[in-house]
Amino acid sequence: MRDIVIIGHKANTSGDFTLNDLPGSAGRMDILCRCVSSALFLSFGMRRDVNVHLLLLGEPNPGKILRFEGLHLRYLNPDERSSGSLIQKALQKDASEQDIRSTPGVWVRKGDLDSLLSEFEGRPLLYLREDGEDIRAIASEIRDPVFILGDHLGVTEEEEAQLLKAGVKIISVGPLSLHSNHCITLIHNELDRAEAERGEIPGEADSRVED
Amino acid sequence: MRDIVIIGHKANTSGDFTLNDLPGSAGRMDILCRCVSSALFLSFGMRRDVNVHLLLLGEPNPGKILRFEGLHLRYLNPDERSSGSLIQKALQKDASEQDIRSTPGVWVRKGDLDSLLSEFEGRPLLYLREDGEDIRAIASEIRDPVFILGDHLGVTEEEEAQLLKAGVKIISVGPLSLHSNHCITLIHNELDRAEAERGEIPGEADSRVED
Repeated sequence: MRDIVIIGHKANTSGDFTLNDLPGSAGRMDILCRCVSSALFLSFGMRRDVNVHLLLLGEPNPGKILRFEGLHLRYLNPDERSSGSLIQKALQKDASEQDIRSTPGVWVRKGDLDSLLSEFEGRPLLYLREDGEDIRAIASEIRDPVFILGDHLGVTEEEEAQLLKAGVKIISVGPLSLHSNHCITLIHNELDRAEAERGEIPGEADSRVED
Repeated sequence: MRDIVIIGHKANTSGDFTLNDLPGSAGRMDILCRCVSSALFLSFGMRRDVNVHLLLLGEPNPGKILRFEGLHLRYLNPDERSSGSLIQKALQKDASEQDIRSTPGVWVRKGDLDSLLSEFEGRPLLYLREDGEDIRAIASEIRDPVFILGDHLGVTEEEEAQLLKAGVKIISVGPLSLHSNHCITLIHNELDRAEAERGEIPGEADSRVED
């Protein structure tokens, strides 16, 4: 399994926005939409072994967590409006501390970074920062990882302190600073290659469970 | 310089579409929009050493070529609607065999694959196909490349014959079949890394010319 966390510091948390203005009134939701797409799509199908967690921290209800489960996901197309629409539907649910299913494979709850990180106990946490260790040097050793990425604002000092306390390893994907969705594509490629070298079928889940 | 060609077999060629339906009425224009964004954006700025060429083959005027020049480009944001809007503006121009500037850094003309390929004489042409040679093995040798990618329909037999006649080398970016925009991100990363290893500043143009 590969889990990918993206922190959206300005992302709207009520669903009260138009799909025609994802970068503006939705609080740079376009960034999160592209991350969902990059995390989940293969050319012909979906990465069933991937979960995406969006931590939305914008107004009016900061602290919502949306989970996209590749194994169960339906109704997602690669374009930004498509993921934007599933995000909007999830945000319109009456969220509590407990997971609520919005559409097949999409769940929403209230929560913060610490509560999200606590879900991944025992798994390697890999935090992307430009000065991190090159993922290419360590991809063959990575198993069952959780990646954490910021948005256009990066990661705040406070969040970084939480991440370090949780025991993250800091990694990078190359010599240039890139958009989060591009980083996700590069992460997948490194892991796909490592799995292929081990003779595993890269990107494939063990089984497909119909929702 | 890195030039990237994407063939859009169904992409609208009149500009008569709504930005709210890039995948549908615009003929999978969403794919081309994501390619433009992946080809040109860095985290903080634009890749000034990249040109993107969209070969649009959909109705009603099949055979238009749009060129995005990273060095001169303005008014482009990373979201799909933003590149869709610049594409639409260019398509609304009265195109001829001669380049017409639509907005800063965006040019449009009539043309086909052969006429586009003839622009790149003397440069290495690299065509992406799943069974190609791994780019990672040859990235350090690549200079001044032109990459050619298909869309969701891939590349037709006839186009492939034209490409082979033009002397393309067939390359791949990893063990899985990926969307064209993801392939572009991976190509850039391999070249960025190769340039960094050579001590060059990756992704930087020699100079910035103001339009």
